[in-house]
Amino acid sequence: MPSESEIISRIKQRARSRGDVLIGIGDDAAVLKNTSETDLLACCDLMVEGIHFRLDWTTPRMLGRKALAVNLSDIAAMGGVPKFAMISVALPHHCFAEFVNGLFGGIAELADEHGVSIVGGDTSSSRDSLFIDVSVIGECAAGKAITRRGAMIGDKIYVSGSLGASALGLSLLREGGRLEDLKDRSDAKQQAIFKHLAPEPRLTLGRALGEAGLATSMIDISDGLSTDLWHILDESHAGALIHADAVPIAGCVESLLPGTQGIDPLRLALDGGEDYELLFTARPESEKQLMVLPETLGTKITAIGEIVGEMRLSIEVNGAIESVERSGYEHLI
Amino acid sequence: MPSESEIISRIKQRARSRGDVLIGIGDDAAVLKNTSETDLLACCDLMVEGIHFRLDWTTPRMLGRKALAVNLSDIAAMGGVPKFAMISVALPHHCFAEFVNGLFGGIAELADEHGVSIVGGDTSSSRDSLFIDVSVIGECAAGKAITRRGAMIGDKIYVSGSLGASALGLSLLREGGRLEDLKDRSDAKQQAIFKHLAPEPRLTLGRALGEAGLATSMIDISDGLSTDLWHILDESHAGALIHADAVPIAGCVESLLPGTQGIDPLRLALDGGEDYELLFTARPESEKQLMVLPETLGTKITAIGEIVGEMRLSIEVNGAIESVERSGYEHLI
Repeated sequence: MPSESEIISRIKQRARSRGDVLIGIGDDAAVLKNTSETDLLACCDLMVEGIHFRLDWTTPRMLGRKALAVNLSDIAAMGGVPKFAMISVALPHHCFAEFVNGLFGGIAELADEHGVSIVGGDTSSSRDSLFIDVSVIGECAAGKAITRRGAMIGDKIYVSGSLGASALGLSLLREGGRLEDLKDRSDAKQQAIFKHLAPEPRLTLGRALGEAGLATSMIDISDGLSTDLWHILDESHAGALIHADAVPIAGCVESLLPGTQGIDPLRLALDGGEDYELLFTARPESEKQLMVLPETLGTKITAIGEIVGEMRLSIEVNGAIESVERSGYEHLI
Repeated sequence: MPSESEIISRIKQRARSRGDVLIGIGDDAAVLKNTSETDLLACCDLMVEGIHFRLDWTTPRMLGRKALAVNLSDIAAMGGVPKFAMISVALPHHCFAEFVNGLFGGIAELADEHGVSIVGGDTSSSRDSLFIDVSVIGECAAGKAITRRGAMIGDKIYVSGSLGASALGLSLLREGGRLEDLKDRSDAKQQAIFKHLAPEPRLTLGRALGEAGLATSMIDISDGLSTDLWHILDESHAGALIHADAVPIAGCVESLLPGTQGIDPLRLALDGGEDYELLFTARPESEKQLMVLPETLGTKITAIGEIVGEMRLSIEVNGAIESVERSGYEHLI
């Protein structure tokens, strides 16, 4: 295991600095330039070996990317732009220098891709498991954060990308599937595992929705569409009707699951966690403006239902209405 | 172990909100009001069971206080004011509801004392050890952060409070000493153990130095005076001469150690970590202004040496000059 000062100097070398980082890594605290036209956004996400990931399932680089990605996804879900990150890592003795390089390399790589500066952190040894806690500070135009509270009766409900792939990937990993060859992206199993191990935060879409003021509420899908939609409904004091036919099920889920006993593609798309797609609501009159976004941004957006007054979540499957209860996703590999 | 939603609702109840918290706990990210007259300060500190603390040495409440205190100390060391905190905790199965209540109660208590809002966090289970990572966001007047870089030849070197008690407390804990009765503060052993388990961040002094612009450089003593002074010297490209007679050794160290074989009170004050006092430099002409602070703030300040041009750290003991090398403190209980 490399020493704390070796790790710090490596991160310092890798961390590209934004102009608004007045003092970065290496003092008691980072000093960051501020502007009053924005509100600050702050979030953190913890990943624990044996709970959120297994080291024999992933690579250090992908693990580093995911630890940051899940935070960037939270900033995207507020309609904001991420700016600064701090990384706390507790390293067990089985994490050697090469592993640590890969892990921080993955974090730095994704940070660079989104113009995020790594401005601080802490490292420690750990007696047993690897712990990674990432905090991100971002910004949005003052008063323009998209919360979970603003969904209104009559709003349409939208989701980005497609759903269910990450949950399928997790189930394949549990059954012994591995990401043997990243290059063969055409293989459906590989696609599903890759989506689970290397989710991409929807920052461009989140920011576009934030800037255009089009979404009335938004959340990222980390716990599964049904659970995360319940979060919006609870905060907005509203209900929703989802149309099963409209839910965009990931191609790899559709192509793999017909042969798999007992798994329903729709259930995987509704309840599977960690897709890190954006789930949002918008006034019906915003539809035209919204439907231009996929072309400009290259991200698919699908209308899947409507916000209703009665505080329940229903799903219409082949004309029949089913009630969806709060389930509560637990990260557990 | 309580569920994540139980923990979140408990923290929500406990977290007192500042007026500048637009959205606190419970969305994808916190939304925080910003002002352009300030620079942001951001830091994080990780505490790991078996590395930084042992559960049979402390109480959940003191552990919670310390996890936040070490971060507040970092903000103090920048001359800033802490505003927001995020708490990530990975809880092993031996941490029951009562423990979690105590831990978050301690964090919330110290946060309240210093006007800090808990605005977010994350919880997870852990297969083995308890992990606590706290991130703090604070502020200081724009351009006025006190870094480690500004020490100049001729500056006087000051330290707040007294030194060595925390290291003595740690050594007593290692030998089986326990904090039996917090009320009997007159006992020197209890004082030392208490200082180790319940350090108080020097926020009032740090803020006063920041506002008055009196300190040219500052750091908090987490790794020990000698190591932390080296951090200032390295960043400021300067050296220092310390006068052993002037170093304020904690009363409990003076009173206990004469009978303890092989331990030198001065060495404990110079090299012992985790006192969380402030170490700073100031121009000689600021002395008069500085010496008023202890009266107003109730915090002792002692001049212990001077910044010199030659890049080495020397200590004058009874007229003889000794050289102090970089040692590097490792948190290891």
